[in-house]
Order: sequence, then structure tokens, then C-alpha cells
Amino acid sequence: MLNVYLLGTAGQFPRPNRYLSSAFIQSERCGILIDCGEGTQIALSHASVSCKKIDYICITHYHADHVGGLAGVLLAIHNQGRTDPLTIIGPAGLHDVYQNSVYLIRKLAFEVRLLEIGAPNFSVDFGGGRIMPFKLYHTVPCYGYNVEIIRRPKFLAGRAEKMGVPLNLWSAINNGESIFVDGKVYEPSLFYGKPRKGIKVSYCTDTRPNGPGVDVAKDVAGADLLICEAMYSKETRTEKAWETRHMFMWEAAELAKKACVRCVWLTHFSKSNFAPDTELKDLRSIMPNLFIGRDGMSTELFYDNDGERDADYTRLEEELVMDDVGASVSDVIANL
Amino acid sequence: MLNVYLLGTAGQFPRPNRYLSSAFIQSERCGILIDCGEGTQIALSHASVSCKKIDYICITHYHADHVGGLAGVLLAIHNQGRTDPLTIIGPAGLHDVYQNSVYLIRKLAFEVRLLEIGAPNFSVDFGGGRIMPFKLYHTVPCYGYNVEIIRRPKFLAGRAEKMGVPLNLWSAINNGESIFVDGKVYEPSLFYGKPRKGIKVSYCTDTRPNGPGVDVAKDVAGADLLICEAMYSKETRTEKAWETRHMFMWEAAELAKKACVRCVWLTHFSKSNFAPDTELKDLRSIMPNLFIGRDGMSTELFYDNDGERDADYTRLEEELVMDDVGASVSDVIANL
Repeated sequence: MLNVYLLGTAGQFPRPNRYLSSAFIQSERCGILIDCGEGTQIALSHASVSCKKIDYICITHYHADHVGGLAGVLLAIHNQGRTDPLTIIGPAGLHDVYQNSVYLIRKLAFEVRLLEIGAPNFSVDFGGGRIMPFKLYHTVPCYGYNVEIIRRPKFLAGRAEKMGVPLNLWSAINNGESIFVDGKVYEPSLFYGKPRKGIKVSYCTDTRPNGPGVDVAKDVAGADLLICEAMYSKETRTEKAWETRHMFMWEAAELAKKACVRCVWLTHFSKSNFAPDTELKDLRSIMPNLFIGRDGMSTELFYDNDGERDADYTRLEEELVMDDVGASVSDVIANL
Repeated sequence: MLNVYLLGTAGQFPRPNRYLSSAFIQSERCGILIDCGEGTQIALSHASVSCKKIDYICITHYHADHVGGLAGVLLAIHNQGRTDPLTIIGPAGLHDVYQNSVYLIRKLAFEVRLLEIGAPNFSVDFGGGRIMPFKLYHTVPCYGYNVEIIRRPKFLAGRAEKMGVPLNLWSAINNGESIFVDGKVYEPSLFYGKPRKGIKVSYCTDTRPNGPGVDVAKDVAGADLLICEAMYSKETRTEKAWETRHMFMWEAAELAKKACVRCVWLTHFSKSNFAPDTELKDLRSIMPNLFIGRDGMSTELFYDNDGERDADYTRLEEELVMDDVGASVSDVIANL
């Protein structure tokens, strides 16, 4: 299971109803904050996310609207009593950005580890999952992030029983260890069923859909949830999106369709894109399972066939519904 | 006339209903922002204050909750098209704090001038008024700010007429220039009435009421409006206020009374002081014209005897009233 919280949905400048774009992903064992522009600590508080749970902070790039709230988030984490180490991941230059950000902070009660994104297949494993940055095409070096929860193949208990594996060795197999039975070595894979799909969440801002060596659809392919920048409405000049290396909403919808993601949340709206809901019908004609992001939107994602519950992609706390942004989430759902 | 906007009222950490403590003062010719913790650019937007109007940014001290939003405010000012120079005033160390704050900013369309507070009587004159820092007693070097609008003495037109001063010289007198009439030099003060009280707004956070070389009541004496820190409720341990060099609400009320200010707004509430209104009755028994600060509170201050309007010290836009903080502003006024 994975909980995803969309903390802020504004690009460039925060607005009274939209904090700067940021998301928090909570797995059973790990909390991951992606981006932290100015005000993110307030957005976390709005979403009732305890800062103490943040194990990783992933920075897409070093524009102020994506990292200007780093010091505030770190102070809030400190204040909530964290003592476990925390890791910050970001493009080259992270050490300087970090040092400048924490200039006013005297002391943190936890160790901060800095990981600059290196080789093309750079990834970070955490308990039960993996963080994988992928290159984007923006005006400065920029990365999106895939967060994947790995699902173990099914343990074939019948086979283990048939082959006389004692019960006390079953957990070793489950932990991926080889076992000895009657003088023979058995690889654990012998007792595993077919590979099973895990859960994939992709976070993608700021970027054009494509660029030199960049094909975002390929990197976010098959995601259960794509959180995608959608800076501009169709009213904006095409040149503007090219100059600033951002996307139109319709481009984000096309990208989501091409990548065959299950659901897409649009985010990082420009100030000029003040009523993104007005394009919803057109966007849905491209990608039906598309939602206009709102601060505080959240969902729980489950493994396939886990039964009882389907993901509700627009869980939104009542008090966070913003009436002045356009159609409400319930309208959106009603119009599906 | 002077407009005062209380932008944020939280101390240490911003909260969903309280941005970090900050105020904006707008005279006819000059806009002054005092403190800019994280989120101040959003608070300015909430209060419908155009960032472009900010001519001075006065920083009380270099704790993150008072300066962490500097980069965001500067970017917002840039975005709103300011090209006129802007001056930042703060304690020693301003140059380093500024350089670290703007590390992520590539370019601003306006010149930024930095003024470190120097000699004891350091002050900055702007058109028609003066900014005067005064020392506070906190855990780090810290200053409060008096903003004074200077009122010219009345021009004694009758005297000028009687003494045969031609009409075309009257504006020179008004501008403080000496004049020549019939071979004689007349000082302008000859045509001025008694000195007249201007308008004084005092901003005072973070501090104890007194300390070595510090007597806050003396510095804010006679202010038309005192915006004063009031970090703790009476439930807090006395030692805590001493250790952190902050005030209890009752201390701020006593200070306001001692300083004979006309009105005091309390601000910079600790997270632990989540319902400051509960002490309002007791605080009013000390200082009747006392208000619990709320984000977005504003007032217009006028010269004495200007007639028609009295200052309404709690003008608060309807949409900014926060119901969950305790008694509403209308309750407060009703209980006066």
C-alpha cells in the first residue's frame, strides 16, 4: 500500500489557494517528500502529514519554487523530534544548495545525507521499494522521480511442502536466502511464483514532454499514478511553453495517454492558468482518468487484485476543498 | 495617513491559519515590509498588498522565521515588474544573509541596497517619514522598528499675508526654504505654527520587555499602534520565556500600558499559545485597547483632529476571518 498526498499545485509563485508544487509519498516503511518550495511545511501541516515521517527529500531542480522551503521543512522535522538520519537527493550542485539553505539553521537533531544524482541508472533502495530519478527537459538540469514499491512473487507453499522443506526455513526463502535441505542447496526462486506488479508513482515537473535524450512517456510508462506538470492553459502562446520548457495541460494529457498510466493528476499551474478546470472536458477526451490537482488531494494505492478496495484517486479532506478554483472535485467525479 | 497590514501572526513555525509574523506599512509615498519569514509572499497576496509597492524591507533579526521568505518576496516583487531600487535594513550580518538568501535567484530587475544598522541613532528618512530601529533583547542581535510619519507644522498664512510675503513665495516656505522679502531674510519657521504630532507605528519582536541597555516601553512610547510579540500564554513556564527571550501576553499588555500607546496588536504566538483569545479579558483589564492579532488585520491611521474618521484598529477582510482561533473579531469589538 502507498499513500500519496499532493501538497501544492502552483508553479512559479504560491497563491492563497495553491502552495508550490510538492508531493508526499508514504509507504509502509518510508516517507518521501518530492520538492519543497516555499510554504511546503505549511502544506504538510494542512495535509496532516507529520514532518517526522520524512525519510527522503527528492529535489527535481534548483529553482526557488522547488527548493526554497527546504530550510523550513528541515526545521519543522527537527521540531517534531526526528533523530533518524534523513537523505536529500537532487541534481549536481546539491551540496552548495544545501549549505546556502541551512545558513540560518544552527543545529539539526538528525544527520542529513546528501546524494547527488550520478550515473544514468542511479537509484536508491529503501525498505521494500526504490526511488529512481529520470531526466527531464527544462531550462536547468532537472529530474523526475519514480517511486516503486516492489511486490514479492507469491511464495509457493505447496511446492515447499512437497519438496519437504521444513517450516522453519520458509521465512529464509521469503527473505531471498538459499536453503540447505538434506545436503542439497535450493535457490529461493525455486519457491517463487510469477513476478508480480508492484506500485509505481511518477512525479514529473518541470519539463517539456520530450527533449534531447528525454522521453518522459517512456520513463513514467505504466505508472499507477502520474503527477505531471501542466503549467499552461491552451490560451498561452506556444512559444512561451517552449521558452520556459513547460507543458500545456493538453500535452500532459497526451503524455499520460501515451505512457498508459492508470491515472494522472495535473499540477504546477501557472498564475495565468487560474481556472484549469475549464479545459477538463477536452482533457478527459484525451485521457479519461485525469484530475486537475488541488492542494491536499490524496489517494491510497494498492497492489492489483488485493481485493476489497479500489484506489480513490481524489480523496480530499472536506476542509481543503477550495470553492473558488472552479468545479469542485465532486463535480469532476460526477462528470466522469 | 498610514495603512498598516498585519500579514502573519505566528512565531517560530507557520500554521495553516497563521503565517509567520510580518507587517506591511504603507504611507502615501513609501511601502515598508517588516520581517519576511517563509510564506510572506503568500500572506502579502492574501492581504491584497502589491509586492511592487515595497520600498523597504526591515529585518528584525536573522532567525529563519523572520527572514526565510526573503528570496520569495524578492522574486514576487521582480515578477510584479518593479524596477525602482529597494532597500533592505537589518542588523550586522545582512550582506551574508542576503547573499545566501538570493543564491538561487539569477537576476532581479531592480537594484537592492543593503543597510546594516550602525550607530545607536541610525535612522532612514523617506519621503515624509522616518524608519528608526531600536534595540531589543533576544537570543541574537535583534531590532524593533519605529515608523514615523512627520507632520509639518501648520502654515500661518495670516502672518505671511500680514508681513507682505508675496503668494509666489509661500510654497518655498512650505518646503522649508528661507525667503527674501524687501531685502530681508526670513526663516521659514517664522511662518510655522506649533509642532504637530505625526503618526508612529512600532513593531517589536522578538524580545523580552527589558534587558541590558534595552527598555522597549521607552522606545515605543506614545505609538499610535504597537505591534508587539506575545509569544506565550500564562500556561507557559516562566523559565521558558526567559530562556527563549520572548514575552508572555500579559507582559506585552503591561508594556503597552507603560508606553502609553494608543493601541496594541499582539502577534508572534507560539504553537503552544493556540487560543490567545481566552486571555483577552485579563489582558484588556491591563490595556483596554488591545487586540489579539490575526492574519490580514489592517487599519488606517490618521493625524489627530483630522476629523471625520477614527482609526478602526481591526479592519479585517471577511474572507480572512478564521473561526477556529477562538472569539471572532466582532466578538472582541462587542466586548470592548
